Amino acid sequence: MKLDLNMSLMEKNDAIAAAIRAELQQQGVYSINIIGSPGAGKTSLLERLLPHLPLQTAVIEGDLATARDAQRISACAVPAVQINTDGGCHLDAAMIKKVLPVFDLAKTDLLIIENVGNLVCPTGFDLGEDLRIVLLSLAEGGDKPAKYPATFLAADLVLLNKIDLAELCDVDIAQVKAEIAQINPKAEILEVCCRKNHQQGLEELAALLLAKINAKKTQE
Amino acid sequence: MKLDLNMSLMEKNDAIAAAIRAELQQQGVYSINIIGSPGAGKTSLLERLLPHLPLQTAVIEGDLATARDAQRISACAVPAVQINTDGGCHLDAAMIKKVLPVFDLAKTDLLIIENVGNLVCPTGFDLGEDLRIVLLSLAEGGDKPAKYPATFLAADLVLLNKIDLAELCDVDIAQVKAEIAQINPKAEILEVCCRKNHQQGLEELAALLLAKINAKKTQE
Repeated sequence: MKLDLNMSLMEKNDAIAAAIRAELQQQGVYSINIIGSPGAGKTSLLERLLPHLPLQTAVIEGDLATARDAQRISACAVPAVQINTDGGCHLDAAMIKKVLPVFDLAKTDLLIIENVGNLVCPTGFDLGEDLRIVLLSLAEGGDKPAKYPATFLAADLVLLNKIDLAELCDVDIAQVKAEIAQINPKAEILEVCCRKNHQQGLEELAALLLAKINAKKTQE
Repeated sequence: MKLDLNMSLMEKNDAIAAAIRAELQQQGVYSINIIGSPGAGKTSLLERLLPHLPLQTAVIEGDLATARDAQRISACAVPAVQINTDGGCHLDAAMIKKVLPVFDLAKTDLLIIENVGNLVCPTGFDLGEDLRIVLLSLAEGGDKPAKYPATFLAADLVLLNKIDLAELCDVDIAQVKAEIAQINPKAEILEVCCRKNHQQGLEELAALLLAKINAKKTQE
Protein backbone atom coordinates (compact mmCIF):
# COMPACT_ATOMS: atom_id res chain seq x y z
CA MET A 1 0.00 0.00 0.00
CA LYS A 2 2.82 2.38 0.85
CA LEU A 3 4.47 1.67 -2.50
CA ASP A 4 1.23 2.20 -4.42
CA LEU A 5 0.68 5.54 -2.79
CA ASN A 6 4.26 6.55 -3.50
CA MET A 7 3.88 5.48 -7.13
CA SER A 8 0.72 7.48 -7.52
CA LEU A 9 2.30 10.50 -5.81
CA MET A 10 5.33 10.27 -8.08
CA GLU A 11 3.23 9.86 -11.23
CA LYS A 12 1.23 12.92 -10.25
CA ASN A 13 4.43 14.87 -9.60
CA ASP A 14 5.95 13.78 -12.92
CA ALA A 15 2.83 14.87 -14.81
CA ILE A 16 2.91 18.35 -13.24
CA ALA A 17 6.68 18.56 -13.83
CA ALA A 18 6.15 17.74 -17.51
CA ALA A 19 3.59 20.53 -17.78
CA ILE A 20 6.00 22.98 -16.10
CA ARG A 21 8.78 21.91 -18.46
CA ALA A 22 6.53 22.49 -21.48
CA GLU A 23 5.44 25.91 -20.27
CA LEU A 24 9.00 27.04 -19.50
CA GLN A 25 10.19 25.79 -22.89
CA GLN A 26 7.39 27.68 -24.64
CA GLN A 27 8.35 30.86 -22.79
CA GLY A 28 12.05 30.35 -23.51
CA VAL A 29 12.97 29.93 -19.85
CA TYR A 30 15.86 27.63 -18.92
CA SER A 31 15.51 26.13 -15.45
CA ILE A 32 17.84 24.75 -12.81
CA ASN A 33 17.10 22.73 -9.64
CA ILE A 34 19.80 23.02 -6.96
CA ILE A 35 19.96 20.26 -4.33
CA GLY A 36 22.27 20.11 -1.31
CA SER A 37 22.51 19.46 2.43
CA PRO A 38 21.55 22.12 4.97
CA GLY A 39 24.31 24.72 4.88
CA ALA A 40 25.99 23.39 1.73
CA GLY A 41 26.03 27.01 0.53
CA LYS A 42 23.17 27.06 -1.97
CA THR A 43 22.05 30.64 -1.29
CA SER A 44 25.63 31.92 -1.06
CA LEU A 45 26.31 30.30 -4.44
CA LEU A 46 23.41 32.24 -5.95
CA GLU A 47 24.49 35.51 -4.31
CA ARG A 48 27.95 35.17 -5.86
CA LEU A 49 26.86 33.67 -9.21
CA LEU A 50 24.00 36.02 -10.14
CA PRO A 51 26.28 39.04 -10.86
CA HIS A 52 28.13 36.88 -13.44
CA LEU A 53 24.95 36.00 -15.38
CA PRO A 54 23.89 38.56 -18.03
CA LEU A 55 20.36 37.14 -17.95
CA GLN A 56 16.93 37.98 -16.60
CA THR A 57 16.86 35.52 -13.75
CA ALA A 58 14.14 34.55 -11.27
CA VAL A 59 14.66 32.47 -8.14
CA ILE A 60 12.37 30.17 -6.14
CA GLU A 61 13.64 29.48 -2.62
CA GLY A 62 12.56 26.38 -0.69
CA ASP A 63 12.83 26.11 3.09
CA LEU A 64 10.84 24.59 5.92
CA ALA A 65 10.61 27.97 7.61
CA THR A 66 11.74 31.64 7.37
CA ALA A 67 11.93 33.91 4.29
CA ARG A 68 15.62 34.61 4.88
CA ASP A 69 16.90 33.14 1.61
CA ALA A 70 14.41 34.95 -0.61
CA GLN A 71 15.33 38.18 1.19
CA ARG A 72 19.01 37.54 0.46
CA ILE A 73 18.26 37.00 -3.24
CA SER A 74 15.95 40.01 -3.45
CA ALA A 75 18.84 42.07 -2.07
CA CYS A 76 20.70 41.08 -5.30
CA ALA A 77 17.93 42.84 -7.29
CA VAL A 78 16.68 39.50 -8.62
CA PRO A 79 13.00 38.57 -8.21
CA ALA A 80 12.65 35.80 -5.65
CA VAL A 81 9.77 33.89 -4.10
CA GLN A 82 10.03 31.91 -0.88
CA ILE A 83 8.18 28.60 -0.53
CA ASN A 84 7.88 27.43 3.07
CA THR A 85 7.15 23.72 3.20
CA ASP A 86 6.15 23.93 6.88
CA GLY A 87 7.95 20.72 7.80
CA GLY A 88 8.05 19.21 4.32
CA CYS A 89 11.43 17.76 3.37
CA HIS A 90 11.52 18.68 -0.35
CA LEU A 91 9.91 20.82 -3.02
CA ASP A 92 7.49 19.13 -5.42
CA ALA A 93 6.23 20.14 -8.84
CA ALA A 94 2.84 21.27 -7.51
CA MET A 95 4.56 23.86 -5.29
CA ILE A 96 6.52 25.20 -8.27
CA LYS A 97 3.39 25.36 -10.43
CA LYS A 98 1.63 27.36 -7.75
CA VAL A 99 4.28 30.11 -7.53
CA LEU A 100 5.21 30.36 -11.25
CA PRO A 101 2.49 32.99 -11.98
CA VAL A 102 4.35 35.37 -9.66
CA PHE A 103 7.06 35.79 -12.31
CA ASP A 104 6.85 37.45 -15.73
CA LEU A 105 8.08 34.39 -17.61
CA ALA A 106 7.97 36.13 -20.98
CA LYS A 107 10.74 38.41 -19.70
CA THR A 108 12.66 35.66 -17.87
CA ASP A 109 15.66 33.79 -19.31
CA LEU A 110 16.55 31.62 -16.36
CA LEU A 111 14.62 30.19 -13.42
CA ILE A 112 16.70 28.85 -10.54
CA ILE A 113 15.02 26.72 -7.89
CA GLU A 114 16.87 26.26 -4.60
CA ASN A 115 15.48 23.13 -3.01
CA VAL A 116 15.03 22.44 0.72
CA GLY A 117 18.35 21.62 2.45
CA ASN A 118 18.30 17.83 2.25
CA LEU A 119 20.57 15.45 0.39
CA VAL A 120 17.96 12.66 0.27
CA CYS A 121 14.31 13.52 -0.32
CA PRO A 122 14.45 16.14 -3.12
CA THR A 123 16.14 13.55 -5.35
CA GLY A 124 12.98 11.78 -6.48
CA PHE A 125 10.98 14.90 -7.32
CA ASP A 126 11.28 16.26 -10.86
CA LEU A 127 10.50 19.99 -10.79
CA GLY A 128 10.49 20.39 -14.58
CA GLU A 129 14.11 21.53 -14.59
CA ASP A 130 16.51 21.43 -17.54
CA LEU A 131 19.55 21.02 -15.33
CA ARG A 132 19.99 19.48 -11.90
CA ILE A 133 22.89 20.72 -9.81
CA VAL A 134 24.02 18.95 -6.63
CA LEU A 135 26.04 21.25 -4.39
CA LEU A 136 28.35 19.41 -1.99
CA SER A 137 30.14 21.27 0.77
CA LEU A 138 33.58 19.75 1.29
CA ALA A 139 33.21 20.62 4.99
CA GLU A 140 30.77 17.66 5.05
CA GLY A 141 33.67 15.31 4.36
CA GLY A 142 34.60 13.37 1.27
CA ASP A 143 32.42 10.31 1.74
CA LYS A 144 29.03 11.76 0.82
CA PRO A 145 28.71 10.59 -2.83
CA ALA A 146 28.90 6.90 -1.85
CA LYS A 147 26.53 7.47 1.06
CA TYR A 148 23.91 9.32 -1.01
CA PRO A 149 24.35 7.58 -4.38
CA ALA A 150 20.87 8.23 -5.82
CA THR A 151 21.29 11.98 -5.37
CA PHE A 152 24.63 12.04 -7.18
CA LEU A 153 23.36 9.67 -9.87
CA ALA A 154 20.57 12.13 -10.70
CA ALA A 155 22.92 15.14 -10.96
CA ASP A 156 23.88 16.73 -14.27
CA LEU A 157 26.46 18.93 -12.58
CA VAL A 158 28.11 18.52 -9.18
CA LEU A 159 29.63 21.59 -7.57
CA LEU A 160 32.24 21.02 -4.88
CA ASN A 161 31.80 24.02 -2.62
CA LYS A 162 33.83 25.44 0.29
CA ILE A 163 36.90 24.26 -1.57
CA ASP A 164 38.98 26.39 0.83
CA LEU A 165 37.98 24.11 3.73
CA ALA A 166 38.95 20.85 1.98
CA GLU A 167 42.46 20.57 3.43
CA LEU A 168 41.34 21.67 6.88
CA CYS A 169 38.60 19.00 6.77
CA ASP A 170 41.00 16.28 5.55
CA VAL A 171 39.15 15.93 2.24
CA ASP A 172 41.03 14.56 -0.78
CA ILE A 173 39.34 16.39 -3.68
CA ALA A 174 40.64 13.96 -6.33
CA GLN A 175 39.16 11.07 -4.37
CA VAL A 176 35.77 12.80 -4.09
CA LYS A 177 35.77 13.37 -7.84
CA ALA A 178 36.67 9.73 -8.47
CA GLU A 179 33.83 8.60 -6.19
CA ILE A 180 31.34 10.81 -8.05
CA ALA A 181 32.61 9.57 -11.42
CA GLN A 182 32.18 5.98 -10.31
CA ILE A 183 28.52 6.61 -9.39
CA ASN A 184 27.72 8.92 -12.29
CA PRO A 185 30.33 9.09 -15.06
CA LYS A 186 28.21 11.62 -17.01
CA ALA A 187 28.09 14.24 -14.26
CA GLU A 188 30.21 17.32 -14.81
CA ILE A 189 32.16 18.47 -11.76
CA LEU A 190 33.35 21.97 -10.89
CA GLU A 191 35.13 23.35 -7.83
CA VAL A 192 33.71 26.56 -6.37
CA CYS A 193 34.08 28.81 -3.37
CA CYS A 194 31.33 31.31 -2.56
CA ARG A 195 32.71 33.22 0.42
CA LYS A 196 32.49 36.98 0.15
CA ASN A 197 36.26 37.28 0.42
CA HIS A 198 37.19 34.11 -1.42
CA GLN A 199 35.34 33.48 -4.65
CA GLN A 200 36.46 30.76 -7.01
CA GLY A 201 35.07 28.99 -10.08
CA LEU A 202 32.08 31.29 -10.47
CA GLU A 203 33.03 32.77 -13.85
CA GLU A 204 33.71 29.26 -15.12
CA LEU A 205 30.32 28.12 -13.78
CA ALA A 206 28.56 31.10 -15.37
CA ALA A 207 30.21 30.33 -18.73
CA LEU A 208 29.19 26.67 -18.47
CA LEU A 209 25.57 27.59 -17.70
CA LEU A 210 25.44 30.14 -20.55
CA ALA A 211 26.79 27.50 -22.94
CA LYS A 212 24.10 25.05 -21.82
CA ILE A 213 21.37 27.66 -22.19
CA ASN A 214 22.57 28.59 -25.68
CA ALA A 215 22.87 24.92 -26.68
CA LYS A 216 19.27 24.37 -25.69
CA LYS A 217 18.10 27.43 -27.65
CA THR A 218 19.97 26.24 -30.75
CA GLN A 219 18.40 22.81 -30.37
CA GLU A 220 14.87 24.21 -30.41
CA MET B 1 -5.68 10.28 2.60
CA LYS B 2 -2.01 11.20 2.81
CA LEU B 3 -2.53 12.50 6.33
CA ASP B 4 -4.39 9.40 7.44
CA LEU B 5 -1.64 7.16 6.17
CA ASN B 6 0.97 9.32 7.90
CA MET B 7 -1.01 9.19 11.14
CA SER B 8 -1.29 5.45 10.96
CA LEU B 9 2.42 5.12 10.11
CA MET B 10 3.35 7.35 13.03
CA GLU B 11 1.05 5.54 15.46
CA LYS B 12 2.60 2.26 14.40
CA ASN B 13 6.09 3.71 14.85
CA ASP B 14 5.23 5.12 18.26
CA ALA B 15 3.88 1.76 19.43
CA ILE B 16 7.08 -0.04 18.39
CA ALA B 17 9.19 2.74 19.95
CA ALA B 18 7.30 2.33 23.24
CA ALA B 19 8.03 -1.40 23.20
CA ILE B 20 11.73 -0.74 22.52
CA ARG B 21 11.82 1.81 25.36
CA ALA B 22 10.26 -0.71 27.76
CA GLU B 23 12.67 -3.46 26.75
CA LEU B 24 15.74 -1.23 27.08
CA GLN B 25 14.55 0.02 30.46
CA GLN B 26 14.05 -3.55 31.65
CA GLN B 27 17.57 -4.45 30.53
CA GLY B 28 19.03 -1.30 32.11
CA VAL B 29 20.15 0.15 28.78
CA TYR B 30 20.17 3.94 28.33
CA SER B 31 19.67 5.01 24.72
CA ILE B 32 20.54 8.03 22.60
CA ASN B 33 19.34 9.06 19.14
CA ILE B 34 21.75 11.38 17.29
CA ILE B 35 20.33 13.50 14.46
CA GLY B 36 22.27 15.80 12.14
CA SER B 37 22.83 16.86 8.54
CA PRO B 38 25.06 14.85 6.20
CA GLY B 39 28.62 15.47 7.32
CA ALA B 40 27.70 17.18 10.60
CA GLY B 41 30.28 14.90 12.21
CA LYS B 42 28.10 12.27 13.89
CA THR B 43 30.48 9.36 13.41
CA SER B 44 33.55 11.44 14.29
CA LEU B 45 31.77 12.52 17.48
CA LEU B 46 31.32 8.86 18.44
CA GLU B 47 34.92 7.98 17.57
CA ARG B 48 36.17 10.72 19.89
CA LEU B 49 33.52 10.31 22.62
CA LEU B 50 33.58 6.53 23.09
CA PRO B 51 37.04 6.44 24.75
CA HIS B 52 35.69 8.85 27.41
CA LEU B 53 32.76 6.60 28.35
CA PRO B 54 33.51 3.88 30.96
CA LEU B 55 30.46 1.95 29.78
CA GLN B 56 29.56 -1.09 27.74
CA THR B 57 28.29 0.70 24.66
CA ALA B 58 26.64 -0.55 21.47
CA VAL B 59 26.08 1.51 18.32
CA ILE B 60 23.51 1.35 15.53
CA GLU B 61 24.55 3.21 12.39
CA GLY B 62 21.99 4.45 9.86
CA ASP B 63 22.89 5.33 6.27
CA LEU B 64 21.31 5.03 2.85
CA ALA B 65 24.30 3.04 1.62
CA THR B 66 27.75 1.71 2.62
CA ALA B 67 28.87 0.12 5.91
CA ARG B 68 31.63 2.69 6.39
CA ASP B 69 30.34 4.16 9.64
CA ALA B 70 29.83 0.81 11.37
CA GLN B 71 33.34 -0.16 10.30
CA ARG B 72 34.71 3.04 11.85
CA ILE B 73 32.91 2.29 15.14
CA SER B 74 33.97 -1.37 15.13
CA ALA B 75 37.55 -0.13 14.81
CA CYS B 76 36.98 1.52 18.24
CA ALA B 77 36.32 -1.98 19.67
CA VAL B 78 32.66 -1.13 20.20
CA PRO B 79 29.98 -3.46 18.76
CA ALA B 80 28.24 -1.74 15.84
CA VAL B 81 25.52 -2.69 13.39
CA GLN B 82 24.91 -0.88 10.12
CA ILE B 83 21.37 -0.31 8.88
CA ASN B 84 21.20 0.61 5.19
CA THR B 85 17.88 2.26 4.40
CA ASP B 86 18.43 1.82 0.65
CA GLY B 87 17.13 5.28 -0.19
CA GLY B 88 15.09 5.81 2.99
CA CYS B 89 15.59 9.23 4.56
CA HIS B 90 15.41 8.26 8.27
CA LEU B 91 15.52 5.37 10.70
CA ASP B 92 12.24 4.15 12.15
CA ALA B 93 11.47 2.10 15.25
CA ALA B 94 10.82 -1.09 13.28
CA MET B 95 14.37 -0.99 11.92
CA ILE B 96 15.77 -0.62 15.44
CA LYS B 97 13.61 -3.48 16.74
CA LYS B 98 14.90 -5.71 13.96
CA VAL B 99 18.59 -5.23 14.80
CA LEU B 100 18.37 -5.12 18.62
CA PRO B 101 18.77 -8.95 18.97
CA VAL B 102 22.27 -8.59 17.53
CA PHE B 103 23.43 -7.04 20.82
CA ASP B 104 23.77 -8.64 24.25
CA LEU B 105 21.55 -6.09 25.97
CA ALA B 106 22.01 -7.66 29.41
CA LYS B 107 25.67 -6.66 29.15
CA THR B 108 25.03 -3.26 27.55
CA ASP B 109 24.85 0.04 29.46
CA LEU B 110 24.37 2.44 26.59
CA LEU B 111 22.92 2.14 23.08
CA ILE B 112 23.74 4.97 20.68
CA ILE B 113 21.79 5.27 17.44
CA GLU B 114 23.29 7.42 14.70
CA ASN B 115 20.44 8.42 12.41
CA VAL B 116 20.60 8.95 8.64
CA GLY B 117 22.24 12.27 7.72
CA ASN B 118 19.16 14.46 7.41
CA LEU B 119 18.06 17.46 9.47
CA VAL B 120 14.38 17.03 8.55
CA CYS B 121 12.88 13.55 8.30
CA PRO B 122 14.32 11.73 11.35
CA THR B 123 12.63 14.33 13.58
CA GLY B 124 9.18 12.74 13.62
CA PHE B 125 10.33 9.19 14.34
CA ASP B 126 10.67 8.16 17.98
CA LEU B 127 13.22 5.31 18.19
CA GLY B 128 12.57 4.59 21.87
CA GLU B 129 15.48 6.75 22.95
CA ASP B 130 15.96 8.33 26.39
CA LEU B 131 17.90 11.28 24.98
CA ARG B 132 17.80 12.99 21.63
CA ILE B 133 20.92 14.82 20.51
CA VAL B 134 20.96 17.19 17.54
CA LEU B 135 24.46 17.72 16.20
CA LEU B 136 24.90 20.96 14.25
CA SER B 137 28.08 21.61 12.30
CA LEU B 138 28.90 25.31 12.49
CA ALA B 139 30.32 24.99 8.95
CA GLU B 140 26.66 24.83 7.89
CA GLY B 141 26.22 28.43 8.98
CA GLY B 142 24.42 29.93 11.93
CA ASP B 143 20.90 30.08 10.51
CA LYS B 144 19.93 26.41 10.73
CA PRO B 145 17.91 26.38 14.00
CA ALA B 146 15.34 28.87 12.62
CA LYS B 147 15.21 27.03 9.30
CA TYR B 148 14.69 23.58 10.86
CA PRO B 149 12.71 24.52 13.97
CA ALA B 150 10.92 21.19 14.55
CA THR B 151 14.24 19.35 14.72
CA PHE B 152 15.68 21.73 17.31
CA LEU B 153 12.41 21.79 19.25
CA ALA B 154 12.60 18.00 19.66
CA ALA B 155 16.23 18.03 20.91
CA ASP B 156 17.17 17.41 24.53
CA LEU B 157 20.77 18.36 23.86
CA VAL B 158 22.23 20.36 20.97
CA LEU B 159 25.92 19.93 20.20
CA LEU B 160 27.60 22.70 18.23
CA ASN B 161 30.32 20.85 16.33
CA LYS B 162 33.29 22.01 14.23
CA ILE B 163 33.60 24.88 16.65
CA ASP B 164 37.04 25.56 15.16
CA LEU B 165 35.41 26.52 11.84
CA ALA B 166 32.94 29.02 13.32
CA GLU B 167 35.02 32.13 12.80
CA LEU B 168 36.15 31.04 9.34
CA CYS B 169 32.50 30.45 8.42
CA ASP B 170 31.35 33.81 9.85
CA VAL B 171 29.22 32.13 12.50
CA ASP B 172 28.39 34.03 15.69
CA ILE B 173 28.18 31.24 18.28
CA ALA B 174 26.29 33.37 20.83
CA GLN B 175 23.69 34.17 18.19
CA VAL B 176 23.24 30.49 17.29
CA LYS B 177 22.75 29.66 20.96
CA ALA B 178 20.19 32.46 21.31
CA GLU B 179 18.31 31.18 18.26
CA ILE B 180 18.21 27.65 19.70
CA ALA B 181 17.07 28.97 23.09
CA GLN B 182 14.27 30.91 21.42
CA ILE B 183 12.97 27.75 19.71
CA ASN B 184 13.63 25.36 22.59
CA PRO B 185 14.48 26.98 25.95
CA LYS B 186 14.81 23.54 27.59
CA ALA B 187 17.53 22.25 25.27
CA GLU B 188 21.01 22.00 26.75
CA ILE B 189 23.78 23.26 24.46
CA LEU B 190 27.43 22.22 24.38
CA GLU B 191 30.30 23.21 22.07
CA VAL B 192 32.42 20.36 20.74
CA CYS B 193 35.19 19.69 18.25
CA CYS B 194 35.84 16.14 17.09
CA ARG B 195 38.86 16.48 14.83
CA LYS B 196 41.66 14.03 15.50
CA ASN B 197 44.06 16.87 16.26
CA HIS B 198 41.60 19.26 17.86
CA GLN B 199 39.24 17.75 20.39
CA GLN B 200 37.10 19.96 22.58
CA GLY B 201 34.15 19.51 24.94
CA LEU B 202 34.22 15.71 24.85
CA GLU B 203 35.07 15.14 28.53
CA GLU B 204 32.33 17.60 29.45
CA LEU B 205 29.90 15.77 27.18
CA ALA B 206 30.87 12.39 28.62
CA ALA B 207 30.32 13.71 32.17
CA LEU B 208 26.93 15.13 31.19
CA LEU B 209 25.84 11.81 29.66
CA LEU B 210 27.06 9.81 32.67
CA ALA B 211 25.09 12.14 34.97
CA LYS B 212 21.95 11.63 32.91
CA ILE B 213 22.41 7.85 32.88
CA ASN B 214 22.92 7.80 36.65
CA ALA B 215 19.95 10.09 37.23
CA LYS B 216 17.76 7.70 35.27
CA LYS B 217 19.04 4.68 37.24
CA THR B 218 18.34 6.48 40.53
CA GLN B 219 14.83 7.32 39.31
CA GLU B 220 14.01 3.67 38.63
